[in-house]
Amino acid sequence: MVREPSDSFAAGAAYIGGSIVPIGQAAIPILDLGFLHSDATYDVVHVWNGRFFRLDDHLDRFERGMTKLRMSLPIDRERIRELLHDCVRASGLDNAYVELICTRGMAAPGSRDPRDCVNQFYAFAVPFAWVANAEQRERGLSLHVSSVQRIAQESVDPTVKNYHWLDLVQGLYDAFDHGAETALLSDAAGNVVEGPGFNVFAVIAGALVTPKVGVLQGITRRTALEIGAEFESDLGLRVEERALSYEELLGASEVFVTSTAGGIMPVTLVDGRAIGAGIPGPVTQKFTARYWKMHEDIRYSEAIR
Amino acid sequence: MVREPSDSFAAGAAYIGGSIVPIGQAAIPILDLGFLHSDATYDVVHVWNGRFFRLDDHLDRFERGMTKLRMSLPIDRERIRELLHDCVRASGLDNAYVELICTRGMAAPGSRDPRDCVNQFYAFAVPFAWVANAEQRERGLSLHVSSVQRIAQESVDPTVKNYHWLDLVQGLYDAFDHGAETALLSDAAGNVVEGPGFNVFAVIAGALVTPKVGVLQGITRRTALEIGAEFESDLGLRVEERALSYEELLGASEVFVTSTAGGIMPVTLVDGRAIGAGIPGPVTQKFTARYWKMHEDIRYSEAIR
Repeated sequence: MVREPSDSFAAGAAYIGGSIVPIGQAAIPILDLGFLHSDATYDVVHVWNGRFFRLDDHLDRFERGMTKLRMSLPIDRERIRELLHDCVRASGLDNAYVELICTRGMAAPGSRDPRDCVNQFYAFAVPFAWVANAEQRERGLSLHVSSVQRIAQESVDPTVKNYHWLDLVQGLYDAFDHGAETALLSDAAGNVVEGPGFNVFAVIAGALVTPKVGVLQGITRRTALEIGAEFESDLGLRVEERALSYEELLGASEVFVTSTAGGIMPVTLVDGRAIGAGIPGPVTQKFTARYWKMHEDIRYSEAIR
Repeated sequence: MVREPSDSFAAGAAYIGGSIVPIGQAAIPILDLGFLHSDATYDVVHVWNGRFFRLDDHLDRFERGMTKLRMSLPIDRERIRELLHDCVRASGLDNAYVELICTRGMAAPGSRDPRDCVNQFYAFAVPFAWVANAEQRERGLSLHVSSVQRIAQESVDPTVKNYHWLDLVQGLYDAFDHGAETALLSDAAGNVVEGPGFNVFAVIAGALVTPKVGVLQGITRRTALEIGAEFESDLGLRVEERALSYEELLGASEVFVTSTAGGIMPVTLVDGRAIGAGIPGPVTQKFTARYWKMHEDIRYSEAIR
């Protein structure tokens, strides 16, 4: 009998309820408020050529998110690290997308009080996924700036990585309707902020600009900022974290997006208009090469054990 | 051997993956985007004394939500109705809280495109739950108006019932910190809008006021509006759907909240200040009695079959 993919670890592995299981068998209780109230925080770290990239930076952010949501787990950072290694090892993947999740858990029967819940930890490793596919990374993404506004920081703290994606998903459908491949959302003031799973950067008259507030503090965003600081004198580009308007974005010589799901990826069309020369530019290419080179550096990565 | 509650239907029943199972065994795939992106819509209908209340109104709203999120299911309304009856019957509950859910489903491996997903239907019936417990319904809830803003309608359409609750949950913790029992959130303009799972009404100088925009179009809210219209001349109260300020709320002679989880429930303290005489008022009591009376009316209810 041929074994179904859902019964094997080839498609991925998950840590649920105290054991490592094939991803196809990984399920969470329907009453977990992580689902019913999206009351959860998570992080995604990737494995490239058998090495985690910036795992401690992701764990730092995950722990800060739990604190902000008033969640806690009975396991410490080293145990979490071990479980993530276990998931990747069980999957046999060399390049993986690894998600770690803390949910509020289940309320006591009849209770609606989140303080009565026992917070839960889940994790899984699946094959590495990209915001932009190989062809899109070669020619650059086509992006639409949607009229859907990103959820404001006065409502949900964007520095707590969260599953509140309906605005991003509606933006994505909006982008498809406009013939684009992905979306960028704006804030109430009309400045562009972020897209489904990525931050955005624009090269504008000697500056590398990325939105400062109302965005996830992405680890790849931080890596791009560090690369920017490293190359500042070399490229004659100063790094600026500040509001980025739609008009500035359209007038940029280069635009790229950053995500754990793919690193640094070029954008060459915004609302049907070419950015710069309409092809991935030299800054984007230099940053991308440096980004992947960092994956071999033991200061940023650790081998799956 | 004593059977664990998780193995029995006494705690509730769920429809998952084509069969009815005890609620303790009901789990959804961890990769369902209904969890990972909170990309889902749902509805909650209640059963009281063995009868669904306004089931078609809930199904109407559920179907509108799916359309707005561009989701569709291979089962029609009558099949959904049948599955909800099945869950309640399996649970043996006379008073139940019944949730029906449509999620985006799982993306194809490696894909981040919601159009590639097969939307999923889940449902469950658990014992009836209350926003306010018996003591709170007797004396009135103590409510705190939180500084956390409700997610704006420019980001997520509040008429699509959704799981984006982190603002409501943070508001609830904020309320606990202020010694209150539940929270009310405001919009960016500073008007009060809604709380965790409920709409709000205030009796102000001859008017019964409830916020018009930026709120869930609650079925209990609608029922209260209908009762208001019915009692208009009797009580000398005109019904007004409009913006409701914090100052107006504090100066109201009565405040109540409405939810499928408990119907019409009095609020007697807002930020530590007594509303009216500080006890549940005559309008609230009259509306509550009428609300429960409607449950016996076959125009609004159908028996579990």
